Amino acid sequence: MIERFETTSRLSKILAVGNSVFLSGLTAKDKSGDVKQQALDIFHQIEGYLAMAGTDKRHLVSVNIWLADITLAPRMNEAWESWIDPEALPARATVGAALGGQGTLIEVMAQAIRP
Amino acid sequence: MIERFETTSRLSKILAVGNSVFLSGLTAKDKSGDVKQQALDIFHQIEGYLAMAGTDKRHLVSVNIWLADITLAPRMNEAWESWIDPEALPARATVGAALGGQGTLIEVMAQAIRP
Amino acid sequence: MIERFETTSRLSKILAVGNSVFLSGLTAKDKSGDVKQQALDIFHQIEGYLAMAGTDKRHLVSVNIWLADITLAPRMNEAWESWIDPEALPARATVGAALGGQGTLIEVMAQAIRP
Repeated sequence: MIERFETTSRLSKILAVGNSVFLSGLTAKDKSGDVKQQALDIFHQIEGYLAMAGTDKRHLVSVNIWLADITLAPRMNEAWESWIDPEALPARATVGAALGGQGTLIEVMAQAIRP
Repeated sequence: MIERFETTSRLSKILAVGNSVFLSGLTAKDKSGDVKQQALDIFHQIEGYLAMAGTDKRHLVSVNIWLADITLAPRMNEAWESWIDPEALPARATVGAALGGQGTLIEVMAQAIRP
Repeated sequence: MIERFETTSRLSKILAVGNSVFLSGLTAKDKSGDVKQQALDIFHQIEGYLAMAGTDKRHLVSVNIWLADITLAPRMNEAWESWIDPEALPARATVGAALGGQGTLIEVMAQAIRP
């Protein structure tokens, strides 16, 4: 059975089925910040959504990061390394892409498992 | 055991293993239409492929949408909202990307489960 | 239980949980080559990582390919077709994206199962 959480008119921000957990592409709620601030904004959203599905960031398995400007990767990584548990690192890919929404510098889509 | 369907020389348009179903990145068969028409063309392909694997659009869990021009998102969403079941919304991410194939405005890759 | 292999300060190059295997976005170790050479470099890395997780390229289920220039797709496909087993084709999507790292022409992220 599929469980859906935080559903908008178009998508479920987080969805769980069996022990698999899928998150939508998330952008910062506050887009006035730089890429590091926007990244942390998203990472905190991810923590909240994972909790809804009964899991946490230590159970992330795969993360896709899109940057409006790929040269922002080092600044994004500062946010990432301050947030991610170094003992529980997921697979990850980071590429540049045109992003939706005024001022969006980063979008993140993640997949996790739940215990 | 992996089941592959609609195999080309390079990829399987749809592949199922256990209760997981993976689709390839799909583009419209008719690329003369606008992004809304191309989106519907792809969504109908997805329905057909999901049926081959014994499932349907209500069992989509995660969808990646790439647009040749991210400002086309509102028009794409018109097609999406006319097609997707609002009671069964998957996780989803939409970003801009350079797409292959003359006239391609949208490409969609999806993951589903089967009951 | 999540098993992580080839962990850097930021990510696990490959991660396995249950029968699912997730790889990070990989780029060529030698970026002096053209897109075909860089693709083969990555594909050989994938084989090595899959072996660490107890599986092989015949068990790939889904592959995302990003090209710095989407018009390089035919040359990338030459590498792909020389490497992939035509009897075991995964789902796949290829789009253009800005890629990190000096000289990077291609990045590949893959998901597999293990027997």
